[in-house]
Amino acid sequence: MPLSVPSDIEIASSVKPRPIVDVARDLGLTADDLELYGKHKAKLPLDVTLQPVRGRLVLVTAINPTPAGEGKSTVAVGLSQALRRLSVNAVLCMREPSLGPVFGVKGGAAGGGYSQVIPMADINLHFTGDFHAIASAHSLLSAMLDNHLQQGNPLNIDTRRITWPRTIDMNDRALRHAVIGLGGAANGVVREERWVIIPASEIMAIVALSTSRENLEHRLGQIIVGANVTKSPVRARDLKASGAMALLLKDAISPNLVQTLEGGPAILHAGPFGNIAHGCNSIVATRAGLALADVVVTEAGFGSDLGAEKFFDIKCRVGGLNPEAAVLVATVRSLKMQGGRTSSSSAFPLSSRSTVSSPTRKRS
Amino acid sequence: MPLSVPSDIEIASSVKPRPIVDVARDLGLTADDLELYGKHKAKLPLDVTLQPVRGRLVLVTAINPTPAGEGKSTVAVGLSQALRRLSVNAVLCMREPSLGPVFGVKGGAAGGGYSQVIPMADINLHFTGDFHAIASAHSLLSAMLDNHLQQGNPLNIDTRRITWPRTIDMNDRALRHAVIGLGGAANGVVREERWVIIPASEIMAIVALSTSRENLEHRLGQIIVGANVTKSPVRARDLKASGAMALLLKDAISPNLVQTLEGGPAILHAGPFGNIAHGCNSIVATRAGLALADVVVTEAGFGSDLGAEKFFDIKCRVGGLNPEAAVLVATVRSLKMQGGRTSSSSAFPLSSRSTVSSPTRKRS
Amino acid sequence: MPLSVPSDIEIASSVKPRPIVDVARDLGLTADDLELYGKHKAKLPLDVTLQPVRGRLVLVTAINPTPAGEGKSTVAVGLSQALRRLSVNAVLCMREPSLGPVFGVKGGAAGGGYSQVIPMADINLHFTGDFHAIASAHSLLSAMLDNHLQQGNPLNIDTRRITWPRTIDMNDRALRHAVIGLGGAANGVVREERWVIIPASEIMAIVALSTSRENLEHRLGQIIVGANVTKSPVRARDLKASGAMALLLKDAISPNLVQTLEGGPAILHAGPFGNIAHGCNSIVATRAGLALADVVVTEAGFGSDLGAEKFFDIKCRVGGLNPEAAVLVATVRSLKMQGGRTSSSSAFPLSSRSTVSSPTRKRS
Amino acid sequence: MPLSVPSDIEIASSVKPRPIVDVARDLGLTADDLELYGKHKAKLPLDVTLQPVRGRLVLVTAINPTPAGEGKSTVAVGLSQALRRLSVNAVLCMREPSLGPVFGVKGGAAGGGYSQVIPMADINLHFTGDFHAIASAHSLLSAMLDNHLQQGNPLNIDTRRITWPRTIDMNDRALRHAVIGLGGAANGVVREERWVIIPASEIMAIVALSTSRENLEHRLGQIIVGANVTKSPVRARDLKASGAMALLLKDAISPNLVQTLEGGPAILHAGPFGNIAHGCNSIVATRAGLALADVVVTEAGFGSDLGAEKFFDIKCRVGGLNPEAAVLVATVRSLKMQGGRTSSSSAFPLSSRSTVSSPTRKRS
Repeated sequence: MPLSVPSDIEIASSVKPRPIVDVARDLGLTADDLELYGKHKAKLPLDVTLQPVRGRLVLVTAINPTPAGEGKSTVAVGLSQALRRLSVNAVLCMREPSLGPVFGVKGGAAGGGYSQVIPMADINLHFTGDFHAIASAHSLLSAMLDNHLQQGNPLNIDTRRITWPRTIDMNDRALRHAVIGLGGAANGVVREERWVIIPASEIMAIVALSTSRENLEHRLGQIIVGANVTKSPVRARDLKASGAMALLLKDAISPNLVQTLEGGPAILHAGPFGNIAHGCNSIVATRAGLALADVVVTEAGFGSDLGAEKFFDIKCRVGGLNPEAAVLVATVRSLKMQGGRTSSSSAFPLSSRSTVSSPTRKRS
Repeated sequence: MPLSVPSDIEIASSVKPRPIVDVARDLGLTADDLELYGKHKAKLPLDVTLQPVRGRLVLVTAINPTPAGEGKSTVAVGLSQALRRLSVNAVLCMREPSLGPVFGVKGGAAGGGYSQVIPMADINLHFTGDFHAIASAHSLLSAMLDNHLQQGNPLNIDTRRITWPRTIDMNDRALRHAVIGLGGAANGVVREERWVIIPASEIMAIVALSTSRENLEHRLGQIIVGANVTKSPVRARDLKASGAMALLLKDAISPNLVQTLEGGPAILHAGPFGNIAHGCNSIVATRAGLALADVVVTEAGFGSDLGAEKFFDIKCRVGGLNPEAAVLVATVRSLKMQGGRTSSSSAFPLSSRSTVSSPTRKRS
Repeated sequence: MPLSVPSDIEIASSVKPRPIVDVARDLGLTADDLELYGKHKAKLPLDVTLQPVRGRLVLVTAINPTPAGEGKSTVAVGLSQALRRLSVNAVLCMREPSLGPVFGVKGGAAGGGYSQVIPMADINLHFTGDFHAIASAHSLLSAMLDNHLQQGNPLNIDTRRITWPRTIDMNDRALRHAVIGLGGAANGVVREERWVIIPASEIMAIVALSTSRENLEHRLGQIIVGANVTKSPVRARDLKASGAMALLLKDAISPNLVQTLEGGPAILHAGPFGNIAHGCNSIVATRAGLALADVVVTEAGFGSDLGAEKFFDIKCRVGGLNPEAAVLVATVRSLKMQGGRTSSSSAFPLSSRSTVSSPTRKRS
Repeated sequence: MPLSVPSDIEIASSVKPRPIVDVARDLGLTADDLELYGKHKAKLPLDVTLQPVRGRLVLVTAINPTPAGEGKSTVAVGLSQALRRLSVNAVLCMREPSLGPVFGVKGGAAGGGYSQVIPMADINLHFTGDFHAIASAHSLLSAMLDNHLQQGNPLNIDTRRITWPRTIDMNDRALRHAVIGLGGAANGVVREERWVIIPASEIMAIVALSTSRENLEHRLGQIIVGANVTKSPVRARDLKASGAMALLLKDAISPNLVQTLEGGPAILHAGPFGNIAHGCNSIVATRAGLALADVVVTEAGFGSDLGAEKFFDIKCRVGGLNPEAAVLVATVRSLKMQGGRTSSSSAFPLSSRSTVSSPTRKRS
């Protein structure tokens, strides 16, 4: 890369963001409608998502990706920026990044180059606390489950058949397989445990699929935490956990408003992984966009075969969404790789000549 | 308790809070000075803490407490409210509550009755994310430590002599003693691990004692994570972790502004436990109060023998604070208990006739 | 099974065994040559195995077996008994049974019906202590390995890449996967561990393949216990363990003499599993038989495809043995099963009409 | 120690032992009465222990010991040898050594110098298999307990309140605290486990206290393995384990006959530790001695305050024994140490001037 190309963070830092109140005004919202998180982030009111759809939905997907990704996010951000330059009232809807990969080799995820979402650092770190709230709700269910075992296990849960993991928003391989509850009778029941990263938490998928607070709490109650000794499923509602979990998610269920590098509105909300979940931003975020703008540009994780399919088959059905167009990102690099060339990055010295820019940091 | 006495949450809900921007204006701050978290919470600018001291510092402490506590928080809130009714420009400085006890039997902590801090639910749940940020910084160090072991352990850390625990903001007894790193060579190095609750994290104590961003990062680097094979200490800075940890704490280091039930300013920041740490709100919070008001009412965990001593000997020395008065809360209930009566709560049927109201939910 | 057919143990108990001194005399040995273990078991002197071969070696193998086995042991015992009725100086060489399966569903292994080896109970329990000695030698290496880790690990063994398991002569599924070394710095280094049953111990295979005491100690020293941090193998001799291990095996290396139900000599020694090891009795046992008798009838675990191949390719090559005949046991039951009939035992109600009797208890 | 003093093993090796059949003849037993284990070890028939008492019982005990012991075993062996030189028909009764300490720093235990029991190596290694049999019985109960948990736990055993440990005859610190049952639902129930060395097994104490086969099986059934969920004890008999355990101990319950360095009879049987059990050889061994000889010299672990008290209060009461004399071994070394001198061995350069020789290898 020529030295004259600034880094993502240099580009992000070079722009003075608009007050988020101004960005919201473009969408017809007042300061009173917002819950501010500093001057450049805000929560949208959840009832916006119940307003009539006025916008048209465009999906950005991609050819089968390479390990580095093929630029869906960059194209999506750029497309929404281009539409606004054409005076189209467009809004971008994307996932929130996870803290784990931010500190790992993959880095954060908010586009790249001149197609970014800002404020970059805030978005990549704690943002508006959604992932922390999801972690708290997840951890509460874990703690209530183990406390149930400790208090005599009246539901007869089979400790060998617990499927609910613990979670942490960190890349932490030493927690993939653990034993908990050691230290005698006062310290819980001994059992095997595993931690998953927040984007792999079922609660992340639930937040992304929920259509209202009531629906959220219902879905939380449906979570299967394991099997009892007769191999029947035991659910979060059997542990009477769903009310407290929903309380912990009372703010996290609302979509977040930030802006693109060019000051256009961007709604970032939820971030389920595309490999194990459906890999899309939340339904309430997309519905908020459709209620507030004429065109909504959104994205689905991984390639068209996996991500777009899940988007159409799961998210659109659950959310009552009708996409009207799809943009397919294709690169020479991916064509080479899917065609049998080795996946070594050194095998693609010229592949940056693809039609889209090449983000070097991607989440899965 | 007579039915005519409303519960803490009923009282908290019956009051319409002032916009936090208005509360800040009482302290001479403008909306631009604040980082808003919704309409009723805000972060104060850290540079306020560097302004000259104008206020006088009053400590509220107590006789040796009973298990239920003896009302320090309630007295402190009430005292600050009383001073404001007397037209004294007073501000309250207190600790933030931990999510763990909120869902445990002890409940949250923001005073009680008509001497509360609001918005109660927000303060007791995620508040402005400080505890989540501390958990993230703590967890990052844990992950970097185990990753160091996995990558060949060049610092020769003795896995049997690691003292840095993991943390979670939840009462979760099954995590008191665990084994991590199971599952073969790809999943880390097997070792024993224990989790502590966030108020017991050394980072909580560090945030409470730090006097600036630079001081914070220096203190983070000083953390001892364990010993190497020659039994010499290994520190966070040896793992090159302190920069990233400080980045995760960039917002958490700033004090939070909320209000008392009567609309007076209340600065809540940090929450180290009084049994294992120094049990006071942060130095930067107290210094912000002293810069912005004429009287600062603050509190120190547990009784005068432990909490007030730590306040005077540790916090005041590190923070350059000069307290001018101390209020000692004493109750009949505590006198009975310290005098040898059993600690059973049924032994105190009449002890609610003490001179201060009796909060039923307390953290340690 | 008709009521008139006595059980194996009834048959075994109905016979009064000959003094083992008398049985030995048939092989040309005096009482002074033997180490007696009670009146009906003895250890043969190891130097017998170095005498010239005078006997001819016959292998009993089988068609692919069913889960219950197809009668190799029964045929081998019966064949040796039949040869002696024909006045042939024949001796039987077989494996020793493991205590684990004796208490499991498979039961012991010393033939069945009127083709048994006696004293049945003694053979199935502690016998002459060979398996206990192998367990002690195995456990000593395990203890020395963990002690090496505890004492500073000068060989730089990678605790994630230890391959030497612990062992126990018991079917004990809870020991298949464990974590050891818990309890702080004084209690060893924490790591994952697994237990294998004695017939799966590499030392069992080594005892069965060793040709002398010197060869035994050399083979013990060659054992790979894991890899160091540069992924080079670490051996028992690096831990200076082989001398003490060989000392613990000083008696176990000598073959055991018992008798068939008809009083003919039977040499039982070592018992490696046929699925993971070579599944034959020891080389020294077979060589003792060839030195003392005219015909040696022996057996190799599982079917001809696996057991006989290992016998020819491994045991005969290492031991310098030249088998002159092989008996292939074939049953209708096995033909049905290998031909695609289900393996359910209820599918073979008539299969006991096979040409050999059907032992119901088999080890693998 | 002067170079001219030969080591224990040199002394032991310099003596040609008498055939054990000859030693037994001194006690009035024939070769047919014995179960031989090679030429120099034998099991006595259990019914000898039921014959009338003819001998007089002498206990050798000691002053409070130092870490190296004060010579009880050496005095006991020497006393029995001296009595036989005086033509008294005396027999020695002692504990069997454990394999663990033999490979540890403490070494084996069969006296020392010219007051030893032989064949030293055999006695210190597998001897007649008693400890292996006890380990098997102990391990069987462990395996049956965990199998009970795995098969649905019909006795409702509380896995946090299991008190029955596992055992191994090896000094193996990494097994002091472990977690077992890992690896999913097929591999048992996860729980904490600890291993004890065989002399600390309750079964060792039971073998030493049993007065007959029936009494042995009854005592085995009484073993408490833990508590159920209502905190009531669960016993080995509830697991239907005692019959199989007794079967595994069918030979181990009989006393062993060996000889002193001067060829006098020595009955060695059972070896419970004196710190946690009663620290004496078995009742059946002592009773066999009293039936066969005129004087029985025996020993009790540790000093008179602990060992002799347990001998009088527990072993003699259970076994109906009437000791007629006690020898108290006292040394200058012990007097110094009990009087407040440090326990460092370098503090006693002259202490070998005590009245008894100083064995350097002792078990506890």
